Amino acid sequence: MSVPPLLPRDPASDRFHELFIAFAACGATPAGGVHRLCGSPADGEARAVFDLAVRQAGGTVCIDAVGNQYGVFSLAPQDDAPLVMFGSHLDSQPNGGRFDGALGVAAALAVGEALIADKRAGADFSADFCAVNWTNEEGARFRPSLLGSGFFAGRHDAAYALARTDDDDVSLGEALAAIGQSGSDAPPKMPACYLELHVEQGVTLEQAGVPLGIVRRNWGAAKFDIRFDGEPAHTGPTPMPRRRDALLAAAYLIAEIRAVADRWPGAVHSSVGRLIVRPNSSNVVPSEVSLSAEIRAVEDGILREAGALAAQAVRDAAARAGVAIGRCERADRPGRPLPGEVRDLVVACANALGLPHIELDTVSGHDALSLLGLCPTGLVFVPSAGGIAHSEREYTAPDAMEAGFCVLLEAALRLCRSDGVAERAAQWNGVSVR
Amino acid sequence: MSVPPLLPRDPASDRFHELFIAFAACGATPAGGVHRLCGSPADGEARAVFDLAVRQAGGTVCIDAVGNQYGVFSLAPQDDAPLVMFGSHLDSQPNGGRFDGALGVAAALAVGEALIADKRAGADFSADFCAVNWTNEEGARFRPSLLGSGFFAGRHDAAYALARTDDDDVSLGEALAAIGQSGSDAPPKMPACYLELHVEQGVTLEQAGVPLGIVRRNWGAAKFDIRFDGEPAHTGPTPMPRRRDALLAAAYLIAEIRAVADRWPGAVHSSVGRLIVRPNSSNVVPSEVSLSAEIRAVEDGILREAGALAAQAVRDAAARAGVAIGRCERADRPGRPLPGEVRDLVVACANALGLPHIELDTVSGHDALSLLGLCPTGLVFVPSAGGIAHSEREYTAPDAMEAGFCVLLEAALRLCRSDGVAERAAQWNGVSVR
Repeated sequence: MSVPPLLPRDPASDRFHELFIAFAACGATPAGGVHRLCGSPADGEARAVFDLAVRQAGGTVCIDAVGNQYGVFSLAPQDDAPLVMFGSHLDSQPNGGRFDGALGVAAALAVGEALIADKRAGADFSADFCAVNWTNEEGARFRPSLLGSGFFAGRHDAAYALARTDDDDVSLGEALAAIGQSGSDAPPKMPACYLELHVEQGVTLEQAGVPLGIVRRNWGAAKFDIRFDGEPAHTGPTPMPRRRDALLAAAYLIAEIRAVADRWPGAVHSSVGRLIVRPNSSNVVPSEVSLSAEIRAVEDGILREAGALAAQAVRDAAARAGVAIGRCERADRPGRPLPGEVRDLVVACANALGLPHIELDTVSGHDALSLLGLCPTGLVFVPSAGGIAHSEREYTAPDAMEAGFCVLLEAALRLCRSDGVAERAAQWNGVSVR
Repeated sequence: MSVPPLLPRDPASDRFHELFIAFAACGATPAGGVHRLCGSPADGEARAVFDLAVRQAGGTVCIDAVGNQYGVFSLAPQDDAPLVMFGSHLDSQPNGGRFDGALGVAAALAVGEALIADKRAGADFSADFCAVNWTNEEGARFRPSLLGSGFFAGRHDAAYALARTDDDDVSLGEALAAIGQSGSDAPPKMPACYLELHVEQGVTLEQAGVPLGIVRRNWGAAKFDIRFDGEPAHTGPTPMPRRRDALLAAAYLIAEIRAVADRWPGAVHSSVGRLIVRPNSSNVVPSEVSLSAEIRAVEDGILREAGALAAQAVRDAAARAGVAIGRCERADRPGRPLPGEVRDLVVACANALGLPHIELDTVSGHDALSLLGLCPTGLVFVPSAGGIAHSEREYTAPDAMEAGFCVLLEAALRLCRSDGVAERAAQWNGVSVR
């Protein structure tokens, strides 16, 4: 049941690529990536591109209390029409890739522009559309990740989110104010459907040789925020048995966290990506080390077992190095299926467009997962060359980008147009969309 | 053959404590330490205290090309009189102790002031005196350590020293300029004798229950500057076998560097004190880790063997984590005896003053060691409570400080006064002092 768009496909696709390129210029690095940390001037530039695109297309921009940026396109005649929301995030990892997040925001904006053009050309709509740029998805500058979508989902309050600080003790609130992105608008209502286009960041699609992946579930994750407290001492004369070396404890832990993953090949991933040493002087035994460790697992039973091993490894490392555990906070995200109705819709759109696709898991977290259980939410992947992600070498071919965009546009038309499925979507999972 | 000072002992000792307290106020931390990194504003404040003390006493201050600060006190009538130099350093570790370095500079200044007062009171001198504050002894902000005394010893040229950068890419030259301590004065000539008072930073004196230690030799050290080069990747979906985790390599190395020390209990000390992770984001596999590792050993045969194990550990860690060794620079400092003539002089002074003393090794490096082989150089230790060093909890009792100062003043009188031993000192080790 393909709904042919009133607009020819090409102008909307061109606009998608144009917006993608405009975002890639904000915080561009010489090696072809972007350095666009949340709340940085480069993030401010990308947000200005978003703002301009929405306004030029005749939409309105709202910024909520944590800086989430919403481009609302009024399409339906009634005031209480359901809302369909597409989006992702514009913040990047340090020297990250230009596709991660920005691809989904560019697609959402181009979809919104296409829908409003469609309306001007006479089409009838029964749902409104919103393109969203979620604040601090990456968790690179401020922790935790998924902060903006977590706020929208009611998981964090605004005061908590705004008080998160970076490693220079600048808060998210201060960073947003510095780039003129502090907001006070009420967030839009819970959407009748949320859909996000993202790069896979793994090798499944590339190995399968298909341009599209439809996410059926996410891996569970256990994230640890740990601090070992030792004692500063001179690295020279201090007798070895008297040392309380916080970095030694961290080293024991990092090796063990890796060993946990090696016990379940392919089913558990683990990492320590962030580590801060104090005082970090070559002649001082480290007195304090903070680090972020994580375990991700294909199923929750394994996650429980691997997570318990990791927690034990923290205690063992501290005991072996003779240091104290100053902090060991753990946040678990269980593995959950994504709603079948949204997957069915995306499959139908891909089939209508003749685009090959497979279903797959997501190992990484995405804003779409923040909304899981609150509204019908879906996640569409396009291939990452070599599985490379969080790197300036991240790459997705233009054809694959195009495939992802076309599926999103098709889904938006089906969801929003009066001859679409918006009303049906509003009943999915018993979510009220009023 | 004690030479009674013309001045009563007390005013000079009072001045020593007064100068020590003045230095401790520069960069003072609430926990009783100092945070006075080389070239920082707090370092500038301490240097101003030094400058004022020398000028008020009638000495002249020179600053050489790398910021070494010399307070020259002309005592002898002849222009080509030998020079006796005492000193240490005013820079500290991050949140370091107030005794480390500053104790020796305060003692040298108070000695200089006492000698010039002695001259005004009619005493005859056959050597001039210089109090010195060496730049960047600690190696905390800029590496390598002992940079200023190494320049004086001809080990580094000025351009090399000034181009050293901190972790924010600020060069030593820029840092010195920012606090008005860029200099162009010629350094003083090689001294006929160099003597340094320092805190032990170990437990030998405390365990022996004596206030004074006379250093007979230094432990050798092998210092490694290492960088592991991996690949950035997403910590979630990237398959474990594809990861090139630079922090994992560092963790394997840190554990192994510790194991090297454990093979020679009490005879080898080892540490990794400094480690920088890039990009240092919890969701990115670390692509680059730089670290400083060191091995110190009681004798050079052990140092060779332990150093070889450490070098092998670098290769093993990189291979095991699948990363490249981007840098592995090694600087060795052999263990060497300090000249017996200076030790004999200090022993004679301590005996004359009735102060108990022992001979001991130094595990830590000191500016006095930079001058080893170039001039007769000596190092006098006073106890560190609990052996605690490079810590705000560093402490040396006032009585022990006093013992150290009195021995230095006695030695200075013997070295500089016409009835002293300056001329004989000038012949020590065959060093020509003009």
